[in-house]
Amino acid sequence: MDDDWFEKVDQSKEIRTKLHFYFHDNATGEHQSVWVVAKSEITHISPTNFGLIYMVDNLMTVGPEPSSEVLGRVQGSPGFADLNNTAFALGLNFVFTEGKYKGSSICVLGRNPVLEKVREVPIVGGTGVFRMARGIAITSLFSHKWCVRECNRVTSTLNELSGLWKKLNRVKYIQHNE
Amino acid sequence: MDDDWFEKVDQSKEIRTKLHFYFHDNATGEHQSVWVVAKSEITHISPTNFGLIYMVDNLMTVGPEPSSEVLGRVQGSPGFADLNNTAFALGLNFVFTEGKYKGSSICVLGRNPVLEKVREVPIVGGTGVFRMARGIAITSLFSHKWCVRECNRVTSTLNELSGLWKKLNRVKYIQHNE
Amino acid sequence: MDDDWFEKVDQSKEIRTKLHFYFHDNATGEHQSVWVVAKSEITHISPTNFGLIYMVDNLMTVGPEPSSEVLGRVQGSPGFADLNNTAFALGLNFVFTEGKYKGSSICVLGRNPVLEKVREVPIVGGTGVFRMARGIAITSLFSHKWCVRECNRVTSTLNELSGLWKKLNRVKYIQHNE
Repeated sequence: MDDDWFEKVDQSKEIRTKLHFYFHDNATGEHQSVWVVAKSEITHISPTNFGLIYMVDNLMTVGPEPSSEVLGRVQGSPGFADLNNTAFALGLNFVFTEGKYKGSSICVLGRNPVLEKVREVPIVGGTGVFRMARGIAITSLFSHKWCVRECNRVTSTLNELSGLWKKLNRVKYIQHNE
Repeated sequence: MDDDWFEKVDQSKEIRTKLHFYFHDNATGEHQSVWVVAKSEITHISPTNFGLIYMVDNLMTVGPEPSSEVLGRVQGSPGFADLNNTAFALGLNFVFTEGKYKGSSICVLGRNPVLEKVREVPIVGGTGVFRMARGIAITSLFSHKWCVRECNRVTSTLNELSGLWKKLNRVKYIQHNE
Repeated sequence: MDDDWFEKVDQSKEIRTKLHFYFHDNATGEHQSVWVVAKSEITHISPTNFGLIYMVDNLMTVGPEPSSEVLGRVQGSPGFADLNNTAFALGLNFVFTEGKYKGSSICVLGRNPVLEKVREVPIVGGTGVFRMARGIAITSLFSHKWCVRECNRVTSTLNELSGLWKKLNRVKYIQHNE
Protein backbone atom coordinates (compact mmCIF):
# COMPACT_ATOMS: atom_id res chain seq x y z
CA MET A 1 0.00 0.00 0.00
CA ASP A 2 2.64 2.42 1.03
CA ASP A 3 4.91 1.57 -1.84
CA ASP A 4 2.30 2.74 -4.27
CA TRP A 5 2.08 6.13 -2.64
CA PHE A 6 5.82 6.27 -2.40
CA GLU A 7 6.25 5.83 -6.14
CA LYS A 8 3.80 8.63 -6.83
CA VAL A 9 5.19 11.22 -4.45
CA ASP A 10 7.46 12.74 -7.07
CA GLN A 11 4.63 13.32 -9.49
CA SER A 12 2.48 14.99 -6.87
CA LYS A 13 2.13 18.70 -6.42
CA GLU A 14 1.66 20.43 -3.11
CA ILE A 15 -1.99 21.22 -2.56
CA ARG A 16 -3.58 23.71 -0.24
CA THR A 17 -6.20 22.71 2.27
CA LYS A 18 -8.20 24.91 4.60
CA LEU A 19 -9.84 23.46 7.64
CA HIS A 20 -12.20 25.10 10.07
CA PHE A 21 -13.34 23.48 13.29
CA TYR A 22 -13.79 23.86 17.01
CA PHE A 23 -12.37 22.02 19.93
CA HIS A 24 -13.37 21.70 23.54
CA ASP A 25 -10.73 22.17 26.17
CA ASN A 26 -12.38 20.93 29.34
CA ALA A 27 -10.28 21.69 32.41
CA THR A 28 -12.84 20.30 34.86
CA GLY A 29 -16.10 18.36 35.00
CA GLU A 30 -17.36 15.01 33.87
CA HIS A 31 -15.68 15.30 30.48
CA GLN A 32 -12.38 16.67 31.76
CA SER A 33 -9.89 16.36 28.92
CA VAL A 34 -6.92 18.33 30.29
CA TRP A 35 -4.75 16.75 32.99
CA VAL A 36 -1.52 17.85 34.69
CA VAL A 37 1.43 15.51 34.14
CA ALA A 38 4.39 17.56 35.42
CA LYS A 39 5.42 20.85 36.98
CA SER A 40 8.52 22.72 38.12
CA GLU A 41 9.34 23.82 41.64
CA ILE A 42 8.44 27.43 40.75
CA THR A 43 5.16 26.68 38.99
CA HIS A 44 3.05 27.38 42.09
CA ILE A 45 4.53 30.89 42.45
CA SER A 46 4.81 31.66 38.73
CA PRO A 47 2.23 34.16 37.41
CA THR A 48 2.46 32.38 34.07
CA ASN A 49 2.32 28.79 35.39
CA PHE A 50 5.88 28.26 34.16
CA GLY A 51 6.77 24.58 33.96
CA LEU A 52 3.23 23.24 34.18
CA ILE A 53 2.71 20.48 31.59
CA TYR A 54 -0.60 18.90 30.60
CA MET A 55 -1.69 15.88 28.65
CA VAL A 56 -4.86 16.67 26.69
CA ASP A 57 -7.38 14.66 24.67
CA ASN A 58 -9.94 17.22 23.52
CA LEU A 59 -13.11 16.73 21.49
CA MET A 60 -12.95 18.31 18.00
CA THR A 61 -16.26 19.26 16.35
CA VAL A 62 -17.67 20.90 13.23
CA GLY A 63 -19.48 23.64 15.16
CA PRO A 64 -18.93 25.49 18.42
CA GLU A 65 -21.39 23.44 20.48
CA PRO A 66 -20.05 20.34 22.22
CA SER A 67 -23.09 18.53 20.82
CA SER A 68 -22.05 19.46 17.29
CA GLU A 69 -20.99 16.86 14.74
CA VAL A 70 -17.82 15.09 15.91
CA LEU A 71 -14.66 15.38 13.80
CA GLY A 72 -12.11 13.78 16.10
CA ARG A 73 -9.69 14.49 18.92
CA VAL A 74 -6.87 16.90 19.67
CA GLN A 75 -4.19 15.02 21.59
CA GLY A 76 -0.82 15.94 22.99
CA SER A 77 1.18 17.74 25.60
CA PRO A 78 1.20 21.54 26.00
CA GLY A 79 3.45 23.07 28.66
CA PHE A 80 3.74 26.63 29.96
CA ALA A 81 7.18 27.71 28.74
CA ASP A 82 7.37 31.47 29.29
CA LEU A 83 8.47 33.12 32.55
CA ASN A 84 6.81 36.45 31.70
CA ASN A 85 3.88 35.69 29.42
CA THR A 86 1.20 33.01 29.37
CA ALA A 87 2.43 30.91 26.48
CA PHE A 88 2.58 27.21 25.73
CA ALA A 89 5.28 25.21 24.05
CA LEU A 90 3.16 22.46 22.56
CA GLY A 91 3.00 19.40 20.38
CA LEU A 92 -0.53 18.43 19.35
CA ASN A 93 -1.99 15.86 16.99
CA PHE A 94 -5.30 16.69 15.32
CA VAL A 95 -6.78 13.24 14.80
CA PHE A 96 -9.76 12.91 12.45
CA THR A 97 -11.98 10.00 13.49
CA GLU A 98 -15.08 10.93 11.46
CA GLY A 99 -15.97 12.68 8.20
CA LYS A 100 -14.03 12.95 4.98
CA TYR A 101 -10.66 13.03 6.77
CA LYS A 102 -11.35 10.00 8.94
CA GLY A 103 -8.10 8.18 9.60
CA SER A 104 -5.87 11.16 8.82
CA SER A 105 -4.07 13.45 11.24
CA ILE A 106 -2.18 16.76 11.37
CA CYS A 107 0.82 17.44 13.62
CA VAL A 108 1.24 20.87 15.15
CA LEU A 109 4.37 22.03 16.99
CA GLY A 110 5.34 25.40 18.40
CA ARG A 111 4.52 28.28 20.69
CA ASN A 112 0.98 29.34 21.53
CA PRO A 113 0.73 32.62 23.50
CA VAL A 114 -2.83 31.91 24.56
CA LEU A 115 -3.73 35.44 25.73
CA GLU A 116 -2.84 37.16 22.45
CA LYS A 117 -5.69 37.95 20.11
CA VAL A 118 -4.18 36.36 17.01
CA ARG A 119 -1.76 33.48 17.17
CA GLU A 120 0.02 31.23 14.72
CA VAL A 121 1.23 27.71 15.40
CA PRO A 122 3.24 25.75 12.82
CA ILE A 123 1.94 22.58 11.16
CA VAL A 124 4.96 20.32 10.68
CA GLY A 125 3.58 17.03 9.38
CA GLY A 126 0.64 14.69 9.04
CA THR A 127 -0.67 11.28 8.08
CA GLY A 128 -3.23 9.93 5.58
CA VAL A 129 -4.31 12.65 3.18
CA PHE A 130 -2.14 15.06 5.15
CA ARG A 131 1.11 13.18 4.60
CA MET A 132 4.05 15.59 4.52
CA ALA A 133 1.79 18.53 5.41
CA ARG A 134 3.34 21.88 6.26
CA GLY A 135 1.55 25.09 7.12
CA ILE A 136 0.18 27.17 9.92
CA ALA A 137 -2.81 27.38 12.21
CA ILE A 138 -4.22 30.81 13.05
CA THR A 139 -6.32 31.22 16.18
CA SER A 140 -8.04 34.20 17.71
CA LEU A 141 -10.01 34.68 20.90
CA PHE A 142 -13.76 34.70 20.34
CA SER A 143 -15.21 34.82 23.87
CA HIS A 144 -13.63 34.96 27.30
CA LYS A 145 -16.52 33.30 29.06
CA TRP A 146 -16.42 30.24 26.87
CA CYS A 147 -12.81 30.65 25.90
CA VAL A 148 -13.94 30.43 22.31
CA ARG A 149 -11.20 30.76 19.73
CA GLU A 150 -11.43 31.10 15.99
CA CYS A 151 -8.97 29.16 13.95
CA ASN A 152 -8.22 29.30 10.27
CA ARG A 153 -6.02 26.38 9.65
CA VAL A 154 -3.93 26.57 6.52
CA THR A 155 -2.28 23.45 5.32
CA SER A 156 -0.02 22.91 2.38
CA THR A 157 0.27 19.22 1.73
CA LEU A 158 1.11 16.55 -0.77
CA ASN A 159 -2.04 14.75 -1.77
CA GLU A 160 -1.87 11.02 -1.32
CA LEU A 161 -3.11 10.10 -4.74
CA SER A 162 -3.07 13.05 -7.10
CA GLY A 163 -1.62 16.47 -7.68
CA LEU A 164 -4.90 18.31 -8.12
CA TRP A 165 -5.40 21.50 -6.19
CA LYS A 166 -8.37 21.43 -3.91
CA LYS A 167 -9.89 23.73 -1.35
CA LEU A 168 -11.78 22.67 1.70
CA ASN A 169 -14.21 24.52 3.86
CA ARG A 170 -12.88 26.97 6.38
CA VAL A 171 -12.61 25.78 9.96
CA LYS A 172 -13.10 27.34 13.37
CA TYR A 173 -12.07 26.05 16.71
CA ILE A 174 -13.27 26.66 20.19
CA GLN A 175 -11.77 26.16 23.59
CA HIS A 176 -14.62 25.54 25.97
CA ASN A 177 -13.81 25.64 29.66
CA GLU A 178 -16.72 24.68 31.85
CA MET B 1 31.27 23.09 6.21
CA ASP B 2 27.71 24.11 6.60
CA ASP B 3 28.03 27.09 4.30
CA ASP B 4 28.95 24.78 1.49
CA TRP B 5 25.82 22.71 1.94
CA PHE B 6 23.79 25.87 2.32
CA GLU B 7 24.92 27.19 -1.06
CA LYS B 8 23.96 23.93 -2.73
CA VAL B 9 20.52 23.49 -1.22
CA ASP B 10 18.83 25.32 -4.07
CA GLN B 11 20.33 23.08 -6.69
CA SER B 12 19.34 19.95 -4.86
CA LYS B 13 16.32 17.85 -5.64
CA GLU B 14 14.27 16.00 -3.11
CA ILE B 15 15.25 12.37 -3.05
CA ARG B 16 13.39 9.38 -1.78
CA THR B 17 14.88 7.04 0.76
CA LYS B 18 13.44 3.82 2.12
CA LEU B 19 14.71 2.41 5.37
CA HIS B 20 13.92 -0.89 6.97
CA PHE B 21 15.04 -1.84 10.46
CA TYR B 22 14.04 -3.20 13.84
CA PHE B 23 14.14 -1.75 17.27
CA HIS B 24 14.02 -3.25 20.71
CA ASP B 25 11.69 -1.72 23.21
CA ASN B 26 12.75 -3.26 26.52
CA ALA B 27 10.31 -2.43 29.30
CA THR B 28 12.11 -4.55 31.90
CA GLY B 29 15.29 -6.52 32.44
CA GLU B 30 18.99 -5.87 32.36
CA HIS B 31 18.76 -3.83 29.17
CA GLN B 32 15.67 -1.84 30.15
CA SER B 33 15.40 1.06 27.72
CA VAL B 34 11.96 2.44 28.58
CA TRP B 35 11.51 4.48 31.78
CA VAL B 36 8.59 6.42 33.23
CA VAL B 37 9.21 10.16 33.65
CA ALA B 38 5.73 11.52 34.39
CA LYS B 39 2.09 10.61 34.88
CA SER B 40 -1.29 12.20 35.57
CA GLU B 41 -3.49 11.68 38.60
CA ILE B 42 -5.82 9.46 36.55
CA THR B 43 -3.13 7.33 34.91
CA HIS B 44 -3.44 4.51 37.48
CA ILE B 45 -7.18 4.15 36.80
CA SER B 46 -7.07 4.81 33.06
CA PRO B 47 -7.55 1.73 30.84
CA THR B 48 -5.32 3.44 28.28
CA ASN B 49 -2.59 4.66 30.67
CA PHE B 50 -3.62 8.25 29.90
CA GLY B 51 -0.93 10.73 30.94
CA LEU B 52 1.88 8.22 31.35
CA ILE B 53 5.07 9.55 29.74
CA TYR B 54 8.26 7.61 29.09
CA MET B 55 11.80 8.44 28.13
CA VAL B 56 13.21 5.75 25.84
CA ASP B 57 16.62 4.90 24.40
CA ASN B 58 16.05 1.76 22.34
CA LEU B 59 18.53 -0.33 20.37
CA MET B 60 18.00 -0.18 16.58
CA THR B 61 19.27 -3.12 14.51
CA VAL B 62 19.36 -4.43 10.93
CA GLY B 63 17.53 -7.64 11.78
CA PRO B 64 14.91 -8.70 14.31
CA GLU B 65 17.31 -10.34 16.74
CA PRO B 66 18.80 -8.13 19.48
CA SER B 67 22.15 -9.65 18.54
CA SER B 68 21.74 -8.43 14.96
CA GLU B 69 24.01 -5.79 13.45
CA VAL B 70 23.63 -2.50 15.32
CA LEU B 71 22.33 0.56 13.43
CA GLY B 72 21.83 3.01 16.28
CA ARG B 73 19.34 4.20 18.88
CA VAL B 74 15.75 5.38 18.99
CA GLN B 75 15.51 8.15 21.59
CA GLY B 76 12.73 10.38 22.84
CA SER B 77 9.60 10.73 24.85
CA PRO B 78 6.31 8.95 24.02
CA GLY B 79 3.27 9.65 26.20
CA PHE B 80 -0.17 8.02 26.32
CA ALA B 81 -2.46 10.77 25.04
CA ASP B 82 -5.81 9.13 24.36
CA LEU B 83 -8.54 8.65 26.99
CA ASN B 84 -10.28 5.88 25.03
CA ASN B 85 -7.64 4.17 22.93
CA THR B 86 -4.08 3.07 23.56
CA ALA B 87 -2.21 5.70 21.57
CA PHE B 88 0.99 7.63 22.05
CA ALA B 89 1.72 11.24 21.26
CA LEU B 90 5.43 10.95 20.60
CA GLY B 91 8.60 12.66 19.50
CA LEU B 92 11.41 10.26 18.61
CA ASN B 93 14.87 10.66 17.11
CA PHE B 94 16.22 7.76 15.05
CA VAL B 95 19.96 8.15 15.56
CA PHE B 96 22.28 6.21 13.26
CA THR B 97 25.56 5.39 15.02
CA GLU B 98 26.82 2.70 12.60
CA GLY B 99 26.60 1.83 8.93
CA LYS B 100 26.22 4.07 5.91
CA TYR B 101 24.04 6.57 7.78
CA LYS B 102 26.38 6.90 10.75
CA GLY B 103 26.11 10.39 12.17
CA SER B 104 22.71 11.14 10.62
CA SER B 105 19.32 11.16 12.30
CA ILE B 106 15.60 11.28 11.50
CA CYS B 107 12.98 13.08 13.60
CA VAL B 108 9.53 11.58 13.98
CA LEU B 109 6.58 13.39 15.55
CA GLY B 110 2.95 12.41 15.88
CA ARG B 111 0.39 9.92 17.07
CA ASN B 112 1.04 6.19 17.30
CA PRO B 113 -2.05 4.07 18.09
CA VAL B 114 0.04 1.08 19.11
CA LEU B 115 -2.74 -1.52 19.03
CA GLU B 116 -3.80 -0.84 15.44
CA LYS B 117 -2.46 -3.19 12.81
CA VAL B 118 -1.11 -0.52 10.48
CA ARG B 119 0.03 2.86 11.70
CA GLU B 120 1.62 5.94 10.21
CA VAL B 121 3.79 8.43 12.04
CA PRO B 122 5.08 11.60 10.35
CA ILE B 123 8.77 12.26 9.71
CA VAL B 124 9.27 16.00 10.16
CA GLY B 125 13.02 16.57 9.90
CA GLY B 126 16.51 15.15 10.13
CA THR B 127 20.23 15.75 10.22
CA GLY B 128 23.25 14.69 8.13
CA VAL B 129 22.11 13.02 4.92
CA PHE B 130 18.54 13.39 6.16
CA ARG B 131 18.63 17.18 6.44
CA MET B 132 15.19 18.64 5.77
CA ALA B 133 13.64 15.18 5.56
CA ARG B 134 9.88 14.82 5.38
CA GLY B 135 7.87 11.65 5.07
CA ILE B 136 6.12 8.92 6.95
CA ALA B 137 6.84 5.75 8.87
CA ILE B 138 4.48 2.80 8.50
CA THR B 139 4.40 0.16 11.20
CA SER B 140 2.41 -3.02 11.61
CA LEU B 141 2.20 -5.62 14.36
CA PHE B 142 4.17 -8.75 13.59
CA SER B 143 3.90 -10.79 16.78
CA HIS B 144 2.13 -10.23 20.07
CA LYS B 145 4.49 -12.39 22.06
CA TRP B 146 7.57 -10.48 21.05
CA CYS B 147 5.73 -7.27 20.24
CA VAL B 148 7.35 -7.39 16.84
CA ARG B 149 6.36 -4.62 14.47
CA GLU B 150 7.12 -4.18 10.81
CA CYS B 151 8.02 -0.74 9.65
CA ASN B 152 8.42 0.62 6.16
CA ARG B 153 9.92 4.00 6.65
CA VAL B 154 9.51 6.38 3.76
CA THR B 155 11.60 9.50 3.71
CA SER B 156 11.64 12.28 1.19
CA THR B 157 14.73 14.35 1.75
CA LEU B 158 17.17 16.78 0.25
CA ASN B 159 20.45 15.02 -0.32
CA GLU B 160 23.39 16.74 1.31
CA LEU B 161 25.67 16.66 -1.70
CA SER B 162 23.79 15.90 -4.89
CA GLY B 163 20.38 15.80 -6.46
CA LEU B 164 20.51 12.23 -7.61
CA TRP B 165 17.60 9.98 -6.80
CA LYS B 166 18.57 6.99 -4.77
CA LYS B 167 16.78 4.09 -3.16
CA LEU B 168 17.83 2.34 -0.02
CA ASN B 169 17.00 -1.07 1.27
CA ARG B 170 13.68 -1.60 2.91
CA VAL B 171 13.65 -1.59 6.70
CA LYS B 172 11.74 -3.43 9.41
CA TYR B 173 11.47 -2.65 13.04
CA ILE B 174 10.71 -4.72 16.08
CA GLN B 175 9.52 -3.91 19.53
CA HIS B 176 10.81 -6.60 21.80
CA ASN B 177 9.41 -6.72 25.30
CA GLU B 178 11.10 -9.29 27.48
CA MET C 1 -5.07 38.48 6.79
CA ASP C 2 -4.17 34.87 6.56
CA ASP C 3 -6.23 34.30 3.48
CA ASP C 4 -4.09 36.75 1.60
CA TRP C 5 -0.93 34.88 2.46
CA PHE C 6 -2.64 31.61 1.73
CA GLU C 7 -3.48 32.68 -1.83
CA LYS C 8 0.12 33.67 -2.47
CA VAL C 9 1.84 30.56 -1.12
CA ASP C 10 1.86 28.86 -4.48
CA GLN C 11 3.62 31.73 -6.18
CA SER C 12 6.29 31.90 -3.51
CA LYS C 13 9.71 30.37 -3.78
CA GLU C 14 11.67 28.91 -0.92
CA ILE C 15 14.20 31.40 0.33
CA ARG C 16 17.31 30.88 2.38
CA THR C 17 17.89 32.71 5.62
CA LYS C 18 20.95 32.63 7.84
CA LEU C 19 20.68 33.69 11.44
CA HIS C 20 23.43 34.16 13.97
CA PHE C 21 22.79 34.82 17.64
CA TYR C 22 23.59 33.83 21.20
CA PHE C 23 21.47 32.53 23.98
CA HIS C 24 21.93 32.39 27.71
CA ASP C 25 21.19 29.14 29.45
CA ASN C 26 21.16 30.07 33.13
CA ALA C 27 20.98 26.98 35.34
CA THR C 28 21.21 28.95 38.59
CA GLY C 29 21.13 32.49 39.93
CA GLU C 30 18.78 35.42 39.89
CA HIS C 31 17.99 34.97 36.20
CA GLN C 32 17.62 31.18 36.29
CA SER C 33 15.94 30.16 33.07
CA VAL C 34 16.26 26.36 33.22
CA TRP C 35 14.01 24.39 35.57
CA VAL C 36 13.48 20.66 36.15
CA VAL C 37 9.95 19.44 35.39
CA ALA C 38 10.35 15.63 35.44
CA LYS C 39 12.80 12.79 35.97
CA SER C 40 12.96 8.99 35.88
CA GLU C 41 13.73 6.69 38.78
CA ILE C 42 17.24 6.10 37.40
CA THR C 43 18.10 9.74 36.71
CA HIS C 44 19.97 10.18 40.01
CA ILE C 45 22.28 7.24 39.24
CA SER C 46 22.57 7.84 35.50
CA PRO C 47 25.93 9.29 34.37
CA THR C 48 24.06 10.99 31.52
CA ASN C 49 21.10 12.30 33.57
CA PHE C 50 18.81 9.96 31.63
CA GLY C 51 15.16 10.95 32.00
CA LEU C 52 15.77 14.44 33.37
CA ILE C 53 13.48 16.93 31.62
CA TYR C 54 13.67 20.72 31.84
CA MET C 55 11.47 23.61 30.89
CA VAL C 56 13.58 26.53 29.66
CA ASP C 57 12.96 30.17 28.79
CA ASN C 58 16.37 31.54 27.80
CA LEU C 59 17.37 35.05 26.77
CA MET C 60 18.43 35.32 23.08
CA THR C 61 20.78 38.19 22.15
CA VAL C 62 22.71 39.61 19.20
CA GLY C 63 26.09 39.29 20.90
CA PRO C 64 27.62 36.96 23.46
CA GLU C 65 27.20 39.27 26.45
CA PRO C 66 23.96 38.99 28.43
CA SER C 67 23.81 42.80 28.24
CA SER C 68 23.88 42.61 24.42
CA GLU C 69 20.93 43.72 22.30
CA VAL C 70 17.92 41.50 22.99
CA LEU C 71 16.47 39.40 20.16
CA GLY C 72 13.96 37.26 22.03
CA ARG C 73 13.57 34.03 23.96
CA VAL C 74 14.31 30.34 23.46
CA GLN C 75 11.49 28.33 25.02
CA GLY C 76 10.70 24.66 25.31
CA SER C 77 11.46 21.35 26.90
CA PRO C 78 14.77 19.49 26.48
CA GLY C 79 15.15 16.08 28.12
CA PHE C 80 18.18 13.81 28.53
CA ALA C 81 17.34 10.85 26.30
CA ASP C 82 20.54 8.82 25.98
CA LEU C 83 21.63 6.12 28.44
CA ASN C 84 25.29 6.27 27.36
CA ASN C 85 25.92 9.80 26.08
CA THR C 86 24.92 13.24 27.27
CA ALA C 87 22.30 14.08 24.67
CA PHE C 88 18.98 15.88 24.71
CA ALA C 89 15.81 15.07 22.84
CA LEU C 90 14.36 18.54 22.54
CA GLY C 91 11.66 20.75 21.18
CA LEU C 92 12.50 24.46 21.27
CA ASN C 93 10.83 27.60 19.95
CA PHE C 94 13.09 30.51 19.00
CA VAL C 95 10.79 33.48 19.61
CA PHE C 96 11.83 36.85 18.20
CA THR C 97 10.46 39.69 20.34
CA GLU C 98 12.67 42.51 18.98
CA GLY C 99 14.41 43.50 15.77
CA LYS C 100 13.49 42.79 12.18
CA TYR C 101 12.01 39.38 13.01
CA LYS C 102 9.87 40.62 15.87
CA GLY C 103 6.72 38.51 16.09
CA SER C 104 8.16 35.56 14.16
CA SER C 105 9.41 32.25 15.52
CA ILE C 106 11.34 29.14 14.49
CA CYS C 107 10.61 25.61 15.73
CA VAL C 108 13.47 23.22 16.37
CA LEU C 109 13.03 19.51 17.07
CA GLY C 110 15.57 16.73 17.46
CA ARG C 111 18.62 15.39 19.23
CA ASN C 112 21.34 17.58 20.67
CA PRO C 113 24.44 15.69 21.91
CA VAL C 114 25.66 18.65 23.95
CA LEU C 115 29.22 17.43 24.52
CA GLU C 116 30.05 16.96 20.84
CA LYS C 117 32.00 19.74 19.18
CA VAL C 118 29.69 20.17 16.21
CA ARG C 119 26.00 19.41 16.38
CA GLU C 120 23.02 19.71 14.09
CA VAL C 121 19.41 20.09 15.17
CA PRO C 122 16.56 20.12 12.63
CA ILE C 123 14.35 23.15 12.06
CA VAL C 124 10.87 21.80 11.32
CA GLY C 125 8.61 24.86 11.13
CA GLY C 126 8.00 28.46 12.02
CA THR C 127 5.64 31.41 12.15
CA GLY C 128 5.56 34.93 10.70
CA VAL C 129 8.32 35.38 8.12
CA PHE C 130 9.48 31.87 8.95
CA ARG C 131 6.20 30.18 8.03
CA MET C 132 6.84 26.67 6.70
CA ALA C 133 10.55 26.93 7.51
CA ARG C 134 12.74 23.86 7.20
CA GLY C 135 16.46 23.63 7.79
CA ILE C 136 19.12 22.95 10.35
CA ALA C 137 20.91 24.60 13.23
CA ILE C 138 24.63 23.97 13.66
CA THR C 139 26.21 24.52 17.06
CA SER C 140 29.76 24.14 18.33
CA LEU C 141 31.33 24.53 21.74
CA PHE C 142 33.18 27.82 22.18
CA SER C 143 34.22 27.82 25.82
CA HIS C 144 33.76 25.33 28.64
CA LYS C 145 33.91 27.91 31.38
CA TRP C 146 31.07 29.94 29.99
CA CYS C 147 29.54 27.09 28.08
CA VAL C 148 29.68 29.28 24.99
CA ARG C 149 28.46 27.68 21.80
CA GLU C 150 28.63 28.89 18.24
CA CYS C 151 25.59 28.36 16.11
CA ASN C 152 25.09 28.83 12.41
CA ARG C 153 21.42 28.53 11.91
CA VAL C 154 20.36 27.71 8.39
CA THR C 155 16.75 28.13 7.47
CA SER C 156 15.04 27.46 4.21
CA THR C 157 11.64 29.06 4.24
CA LEU C 158 8.77 30.36 2.19
CA ASN C 159 8.71 34.13 2.39
CA GLU C 160 5.37 35.49 3.47
CA LEU C 161 5.04 38.07 0.74
CA SER C 162 7.53 37.50 -2.05
CA GLY C 163 9.72 34.92 -3.66
CA LEU C 164 12.94 36.90 -3.56
CA TRP C 165 16.04 35.22 -2.25
CA LYS C 166 17.54 36.97 0.67
CA LYS C 167 20.43 36.42 3.03
CA LEU C 168 20.61 37.51 6.59
CA ASN C 169 23.56 38.05 8.85
CA ARG C 170 25.18 35.04 10.40
CA VAL C 171 24.22 34.24 13.94
CA LYS C 172 25.99 32.85 16.98
CA TYR C 173 24.56 31.48 20.14
CA ILE C 174 25.93 31.10 23.61
CA GLN C 175 24.98 28.95 26.52
CA HIS C 176 25.99 30.84 29.61
CA ASN C 177 25.92 28.97 32.88
CA GLU C 178 26.66 31.15 35.86
